[in-house]
Amino acid sequence: MPVTLNTTDPDFETRFLAMLSAKREDSSDVNDVVAAIIADVRARGDAVLCELTARFDRLDLTPDRLRFSAEEIDDTIARVSAEDRAALSLAAERIRAYHARQMPEDASWTDPEGATLGWRWSPVGAAGLYVPGGQAAYPSSVLMNAIPARVAGVKRLVICVPTPDGVVNPLVLLAARLAGVDEIYRVGGAQAVAAMAYGTATIAPVDKITGPGNAYVAAAKRQVFGRVGIDMIAGPSEVLVIAEGAQNPDWLALDLLAQAEHDADAQSILVTTDAGLADEVAKAVDRILPDLPRSAIAAASWRDYGTIIVARDLAEAAALSNRVAPEHLELCVDDPEALARDCVHAGAIFLGAYTPEAVGDYVSGPNHVLPTARSARFSSGLSVLDFLKRTTMAHLTPGALAAIGPAAMRLAASEGLQAHGASVEARLARLNEGGTE
Amino acid sequence: MPVTLNTTDPDFETRFLAMLSAKREDSSDVNDVVAAIIADVRARGDAVLCELTARFDRLDLTPDRLRFSAEEIDDTIARVSAEDRAALSLAAERIRAYHARQMPEDASWTDPEGATLGWRWSPVGAAGLYVPGGQAAYPSSVLMNAIPARVAGVKRLVICVPTPDGVVNPLVLLAARLAGVDEIYRVGGAQAVAAMAYGTATIAPVDKITGPGNAYVAAAKRQVFGRVGIDMIAGPSEVLVIAEGAQNPDWLALDLLAQAEHDADAQSILVTTDAGLADEVAKAVDRILPDLPRSAIAAASWRDYGTIIVARDLAEAAALSNRVAPEHLELCVDDPEALARDCVHAGAIFLGAYTPEAVGDYVSGPNHVLPTARSARFSSGLSVLDFLKRTTMAHLTPGALAAIGPAAMRLAASEGLQAHGASVEARLARLNEGGTE
Repeated sequence: MPVTLNTTDPDFETRFLAMLSAKREDSSDVNDVVAAIIADVRARGDAVLCELTARFDRLDLTPDRLRFSAEEIDDTIARVSAEDRAALSLAAERIRAYHARQMPEDASWTDPEGATLGWRWSPVGAAGLYVPGGQAAYPSSVLMNAIPARVAGVKRLVICVPTPDGVVNPLVLLAARLAGVDEIYRVGGAQAVAAMAYGTATIAPVDKITGPGNAYVAAAKRQVFGRVGIDMIAGPSEVLVIAEGAQNPDWLALDLLAQAEHDADAQSILVTTDAGLADEVAKAVDRILPDLPRSAIAAASWRDYGTIIVARDLAEAAALSNRVAPEHLELCVDDPEALARDCVHAGAIFLGAYTPEAVGDYVSGPNHVLPTARSARFSSGLSVLDFLKRTTMAHLTPGALAAIGPAAMRLAASEGLQAHGASVEARLARLNEGGTE
Repeated sequence: MPVTLNTTDPDFETRFLAMLSAKREDSSDVNDVVAAIIADVRARGDAVLCELTARFDRLDLTPDRLRFSAEEIDDTIARVSAEDRAALSLAAERIRAYHARQMPEDASWTDPEGATLGWRWSPVGAAGLYVPGGQAAYPSSVLMNAIPARVAGVKRLVICVPTPDGVVNPLVLLAARLAGVDEIYRVGGAQAVAAMAYGTATIAPVDKITGPGNAYVAAAKRQVFGRVGIDMIAGPSEVLVIAEGAQNPDWLALDLLAQAEHDADAQSILVTTDAGLADEVAKAVDRILPDLPRSAIAAASWRDYGTIIVARDLAEAAALSNRVAPEHLELCVDDPEALARDCVHAGAIFLGAYTPEAVGDYVSGPNHVLPTARSARFSSGLSVLDFLKRTTMAHLTPGALAAIGPAAMRLAASEGLQAHGASVEARLARLNEGGTE
């Protein structure tokens, strides 16, 4: 059980800083292995995918079997229960509805000088989604990655998912179906990322790769970045719960444990203004934890990274939360809207006692791919914008060039770029001759 | 002079692919040197900044002299001519006006189930702008980086600029003044990036670092990424010009040379539907080039990377442009708006004969920090959004949780995350008892 910190303790700042800077992830250096795999995939393509799939997933494939056939997908999806299907469909619809509102607007206007300016958003041509295999094959992640891409208008969407011993989670294929993805390859690891980035005879290259994965997948995404776009490299998950005294300690304990059961490196933090509640939540965690199927994982997370902080008031709690910049922030207080205004650095905020973080993982609508490890200070969760890019537009009339061109010539001269200035000057000379081409 | 390719040549595809995949930049590996500098700055702070500034910039400083004083800034800015001041002010105002329109809206709505959903944008707490010294100290880049941050509402803005032999470009300080930045340090290189990312006694850390720099600066930005946010790592600049027959060959030649004079690794591409115009432009380039002050740089760029392509028609030209995904795209054709609709991958589009790319570098208003090296397929130029992050919000009523919570429980069970489901179930149990806490 973690020790409870009190902001009035003389050593609080030291211990809070230690918590903030604690490293919660092994930085296993797999860069050389991954670089070799990428080079091999670039050189020998599908053959490498088949070899590595045989070695790591114990699955013998020929290139024509890398992709799931329509029949295989249909047959696998048919095994999903009606209840699971209904739940996943509800999630898909709510995620779609939320993300549809994120579509940004194009803009165009003409300023007084006669320059028509603006921008235009357009989807990336093709996106590839990595889906981990085995225990971490979360169908919810398929929805959270694929639906924003679809909403953005991405025409081609690809999924790579490893299938150890040939086993695939039927809900993963159903999630792909609900998101409208039918190009699915049974390939995992760094080789899948390499194939999506550079292409093989079977897998055409994509422009953007998203999705979670292990250290090899993360390293591969870093290495192909630049060749293609990538989403963030996610670290272990974390939640910070701010609670006042009247809250139900069992609910808070379950919310902390829901985060802890993800991963032994996950972090759950409770900040409360009530020392009595702090004690009750700590006791509730100890009572509930042993009975969880994933109690070993949750216990390790809670023991190593769990933190309870007693704060003087909600203003102090918000200030501490801003320093943590948590991925998930729960506000279990009487006036969560007011407190949310003070919490400016967080990936996602869950307001009120009836919005447990778990609903955000599945069905509330906002994306569950969120910035971890304090990066909510400067980055955002996955969204439709990640699958769009913006092209700026400018169209000057001859009069507009006459109005603002001389300033450009002046600045070009100050930067020593003569051809820049001359390209403007030549056009202005034509105007001064009375012509407009 | 580069060879002219014709899309009807039998080997066109091979040669076009060779051009697309040509590496235009030395990948000097400075990672180890940079890692050592970052570690040293983290360990010894200001002392390292002073030592390296003495070594590389031949400038002896004490920590209290790292920052420009208000008097130094005032005195330096006073040396700027009225004409330069007016030009830079015009640029600043136009950049501000353009970027002000990029501010995204917050959103909040309540769905039929009773879930209030939405998101809120907020600025990063502090941003650091790297400004190269010497020849590449472009005041226009100061405006293009600092103004979007200001528009986003970033409260603290920091500039680091090396001042070799103590010399600073007065226009750089004026640009900082116009953008409202007064915290300016005479520190450059990887050590400046390390200081902004980790902080020293003198320089408080920032949350996001943007701005161009040499290989050391670029490597440092990559290495501190995660600790702070960074903008893109820019490669050599490039322009693609699509022109029809009636265009002025001298203007087109100057536009190609304006790009080439930036850097020997820059690339200028002309795609025209008129073989005669291709010849005329090539001749105009050869005529104009020798007289440019930066002719050696421009000649190397044009010789090594310059390309002229004769296409069958504008549709083919647009398709080629989409494969290049150029940083800058000029459409010197009769109906540039129509052609722009077909050009879906480009950082910035300049429409019509009176919109030379050079106005976009300075005064048109859109940002001149744009995706290079084909990355316009998946990324966008610098904008206000780079200095904001989005927090998603969800607030469920008890009724909303009753409506969508069971689906979350079902999916949590399918993913083997029992505490997730239990955190929802405990609340629903309370509702079934008739209470709402």
